[in-house]
Formats: sequence, C-alpha cells, structure tokens
Amino acid sequence: MTDHAYNINIDTDTSTHAEPLASWQDGPTKRAILKFVQQVTDKSSSTYVPVAERIAAFDNDGTLWCEKPSYTQEIFIIKYFHEQAERHPELREVQPFKAFLENDRAYFQALSIQEVGKLVLQAVADLPQEEYVQKVRTFFEETLHPHYQRPFTEMAYAPMMELIGYLRQHEFQVYLVTGGETDFVREIAEKMYGIPRSHVIGSAVMVKLETYHDQPMLVRQKSMLEPFNEGTGKVVNIHVHIGQQPILAVGNSNGDLDMLLYTEHQSRPHLPLLIHHDDSEREFAYERGAERALQAATLHDWNIISMKNDFKHIFSFAQIDATYSVHQ
Amino acid sequence: MTDHAYNINIDTDTSTHAEPLASWQDGPTKRAILKFVQQVTDKSSSTYVPVAERIAAFDNDGTLWCEKPSYTQEIFIIKYFHEQAERHPELREVQPFKAFLENDRAYFQALSIQEVGKLVLQAVADLPQEEYVQKVRTFFEETLHPHYQRPFTEMAYAPMMELIGYLRQHEFQVYLVTGGETDFVREIAEKMYGIPRSHVIGSAVMVKLETYHDQPMLVRQKSMLEPFNEGTGKVVNIHVHIGQQPILAVGNSNGDLDMLLYTEHQSRPHLPLLIHHDDSEREFAYERGAERALQAATLHDWNIISMKNDFKHIFSFAQIDATYSVHQ
Repeated sequence: MTDHAYNINIDTDTSTHAEPLASWQDGPTKRAILKFVQQVTDKSSSTYVPVAERIAAFDNDGTLWCEKPSYTQEIFIIKYFHEQAERHPELREVQPFKAFLENDRAYFQALSIQEVGKLVLQAVADLPQEEYVQKVRTFFEETLHPHYQRPFTEMAYAPMMELIGYLRQHEFQVYLVTGGETDFVREIAEKMYGIPRSHVIGSAVMVKLETYHDQPMLVRQKSMLEPFNEGTGKVVNIHVHIGQQPILAVGNSNGDLDMLLYTEHQSRPHLPLLIHHDDSEREFAYERGAERALQAATLHDWNIISMKNDFKHIFSFAQIDATYSVHQ
Repeated sequence: MTDHAYNINIDTDTSTHAEPLASWQDGPTKRAILKFVQQVTDKSSSTYVPVAERIAAFDNDGTLWCEKPSYTQEIFIIKYFHEQAERHPELREVQPFKAFLENDRAYFQALSIQEVGKLVLQAVADLPQEEYVQKVRTFFEETLHPHYQRPFTEMAYAPMMELIGYLRQHEFQVYLVTGGETDFVREIAEKMYGIPRSHVIGSAVMVKLETYHDQPMLVRQKSMLEPFNEGTGKVVNIHVHIGQQPILAVGNSNGDLDMLLYTEHQSRPHLPLLIHHDDSEREFAYERGAERALQAATLHDWNIISMKNDFKHIFSFAQIDATYSVHQ
C-alpha cells in the first residue's frame, strides 16, 4: 500500500468540542438535527432507534465536498484524456475525447450525469484495477481545485464533517451514497471523511477476474453494474448494500430526491436534509439540477440546509479567514 | 418489525470458553486457524494485519449450514409454489411449476445453481418487498428440515459458528458471501450467525421504487442484478461491496473456488479454507459440485476442513447426543 502525501486537516472528532455542531449557526436546521439525534438515542423514549438501525446516508458531490465548477471526477478524466492524447494525437478528433480536451461545456451540458459517468467509466476501462487506483491517487496528490487552488482533499464542507463526527459519536453507521464511481471515491472517503471502503456505495464498474503471470487480477470492464447510483438507483443500491432504510439522509440535487423520500417514509423517526447552494460569496450559488429536490423539500417540509445561513464557515482552510471568498 | 419465534440456541460467543475452537478436533486445520489468527493480530510481527483489513468471507449453503437434501431456498420455493397451485390449479401443468410441484429432481439436476436461482427469483417477482420478507419469515417459523426434523435455523454447523465468534473476538469483519438470494438469507443471518444485513452479499434481485397510497414502496422485479453471486461473481461482488480482499475465506464448492483464489493471491497473510463433506454418518457425504474446488485445494495446499475428522459435533442440537445420525 502506498502512503499518500495528503494534506488534510479536518477534524471529524467532535468529542473534544464542548458544544456540538459548533460550526453550524444556531437556527431551525441545527436544532432539528440536535433534537433528532437526542430522540433516537434516548432509550426511555418511544422514538428510540437501536444502534443497528442508525443508518445515515450522505451524497458526496455538492453535499460533502464542492462540485463546482465541475465534478472532481470530470477534472480527473480530462487530465487523463490529455495524457492519452499526448501519446495518441489522433484521439484529439474523436468524441468524447475532443469535447473533454477542448473543455466543450455545451457538449456535456447536453448530457445527463449518468451519460457523462458512462463516458468516464468507459475511458478508464480495460485497466487493471491496481493501475486505475494508482492513477486516482496520483491525481489527488498532484492536482489543485481550479478555483480554490487547494488540494481536492481539502474541499470538504467543514460543518458536514462535523455532522458526520457527531452522528458517529452517537453510533450511527455513516454511508456515502454517491453518483460518483465507487473506486474513485473510495480513494478519498477514508482519509477525508473516515468512511471505510465498504461504506462507499457508488456507481460501480464491472470488474473481471483475469489471470496474469499466474496471479488472479481484477481488470476494469467497459460495462457498469446496474443500477447507476442516481435517483431510484440510490434507493435500489441502499437496499442491496445496506438492507435497511436510512433514518437520516442528506443530498443536494434531484438525483438525491428518491433517497430522501425513501428515508422519509418509515415508521422510525427520520430526518431528510437538503443542502441549498445559496452562498455566492463563500462557495457557489446554483439551483440547476436541484429544482425538483428543492420543490419537494418545501412541499414535504424537510429541513433545508442553507450554506449561507447555517454554516459559520464552509471549508476548514477558510475558518481562519472569515472573509475568504471564492471570487476574491 | 415483527418479533420472530425462532428457536435458536447457538453460542457464537467464545469469550467464555477457556479453549478456543473447543468444538474442533485437534489437527492441522484447527492449528492452521489458530496460528493464522495469532499471526495477523500480533502487532510486533511483520504478519500483522490492521483491524480495517481483517475481512473474512463465508459461503453459506454447505459452509455454514446444511444444504442437503436440497438448498433451503429451493424448499421454500416449492412450498410457495404449492400454495400458488392451490389458488391457481392450472399452474400444475406449466414449467417450472410442474417440476417444482412434482419434485422432479431430474429437471433440476440438469440446471446450474444459477438457473435454479433465476427460476426462484422470478417466481417471487412482482411482490412488494415487505410481503416477500413476511413469506420468508413464515417459512422459517413453520417449516422443518426434511431429514433432521428441526427448524432450519438450527441447521448451522456449530464449529463454524464457533469460528465466526472466534474471528469476531479478534476484530474480523465477517461477511456472508452466498449464491443464495440476498433478502432470503438476510432473514436468518443476524439471528443465526450474528451477521448484520449489510454484511450479507448474495444474489440480488432488482427492486423498483413504486408509489402505493402515496407511500414509496420497494417492489421485487423479475430481473437480477449482475453478477449472480457464484464463481467469479463472488469476487466481483466482494470488490463492489467490501472493496478489499478477504484475508480468510471459507467455501465448500466449485462456486467458491474463485473467492478462495482471490483470497490466496495477496501480499497479506491469508487463509483459504475448503469444507469437505465427508461425514456420511452425522451429515451427508458428497463431492458432486466440489470436484474442481477439491482439486485446487490439493494443488494449492489449502487446508481442507474434514467434517468427519475436524468437527467434534456438527450441529448444536447433536452435541448432547454424540451418536446422533441423520440416517438413524
């Protein structure tokens, strides 16, 4: 196992804080979270939920880390394509290479996240699993976020890290339920969020067991395992991987809506939460791709996490400078 | 949640035993297990394996519980078909109903476990998940093993239960990696083996999120999620669900061979184990369906668990009567 030179300084251990969720502003959302955790952990209450059923599901892109201006995985693949094109210049004229290389945003905006995901996965097919993992690690070691000029591993939302730590303190099992490709996300989940590989439920690539020099080896295939982990796919994969409903789920887009609905409809206490990207100063303000989710949150009276109003600071590195702005 | 009237009395907690693996005869297999666990838990040794990487994978049918004269799931489905045929007599002439109802063993012996599995899954498609689970629970409450005349939940191999407890005591994560259908096995895994729902990796049915009386509801579909959890499928699903190689794996058939090979080929210490059903007195003696696995075990010098020689007793209920025989 390679040792990584990640430069992470995110504190998910809240046990040392006198006040829980200190990086959250006081308000209805913070109060709802504290009340919910109190309810499900109070043994004397009818709202008590046994430890084995305390499942929390978090989306990743836009929920735990920044997804703008592009998904990290998209940036990874563009970099990979550039490397490929250096070796095989003829690829520059072939789609989707051309679009990736020329950063043709119109090309991608016409595609669903699912379609982009499939392009990405096919691009890194036929690689031995170990080789792919090494490419992902190198990417995270070498590449900076285009706007913040920080390693991607520093792009976690600090209040969400604190929330994960707080839930874990109360014996929740925390799962990452991401549209991203499982093995890509696994390379940062443990280090950034303390989420083990087995708790990353993503869009999964088919692997094939091949024999190379008498050693069995996993090789990545072009096909994906159904269902793609967005929308109802998240519900199916939660059922397949975990086998029970989360009692708390957090998302930020239409692709998380089914997971939130699935969390809502049960006899146990439950807390669906939707992050609203409304902070144009400290992060990015956008509702594109979250329209149906925001509508449902209002209709169902879910707590909406306002990044502007509920988060005292957004990133750990920004904590030292409260006036930090992406646009400065 | 319904409370189940299971009648189980299997002790997986070995902490009270002075001697570990007391239900195992002294011999090379028991010594190999004890030595392996000692090696991977000794912090001062180069063979030490961190807790997060102590993954153990167990097959179910024929490895943790009895699979003869038929897979339990097959018995479940025959019972289900009989109930269906009472309501719809015309089904008696339609395959595969006819074969199931007439217990046409020739019909099934011509099929692979994968094909039988698909028939089974299709038979209980279109059922809401909750209804299916209730049928499974009722089956386990009402049905006895045809030979032993005991509840199926008593059909676990006691030395294997002790092994699971012993591994857990040494902070292994124990997974069930079964060709059986995930949700069927989940209904007994926690109660019989203490294995949580999230640690059951089986052959999975596609579910669909539907809305019924304004409530989202999972409904079982006719299709399966690829890959079927046998052979290389077990390796793929271990990769997708756990994301790392087991260091210990136990199986008993050709369908487990790839999982055992996958466990063998790694730089960490590892222990692939193959159960040999060689006890015609206390259980069933058979090698059919295990030919390739037995051959590989010999070739690779794996430890073979002889049920006849390595197990002091096979079932918990038989412990009180050492002369208990299935054929008496």
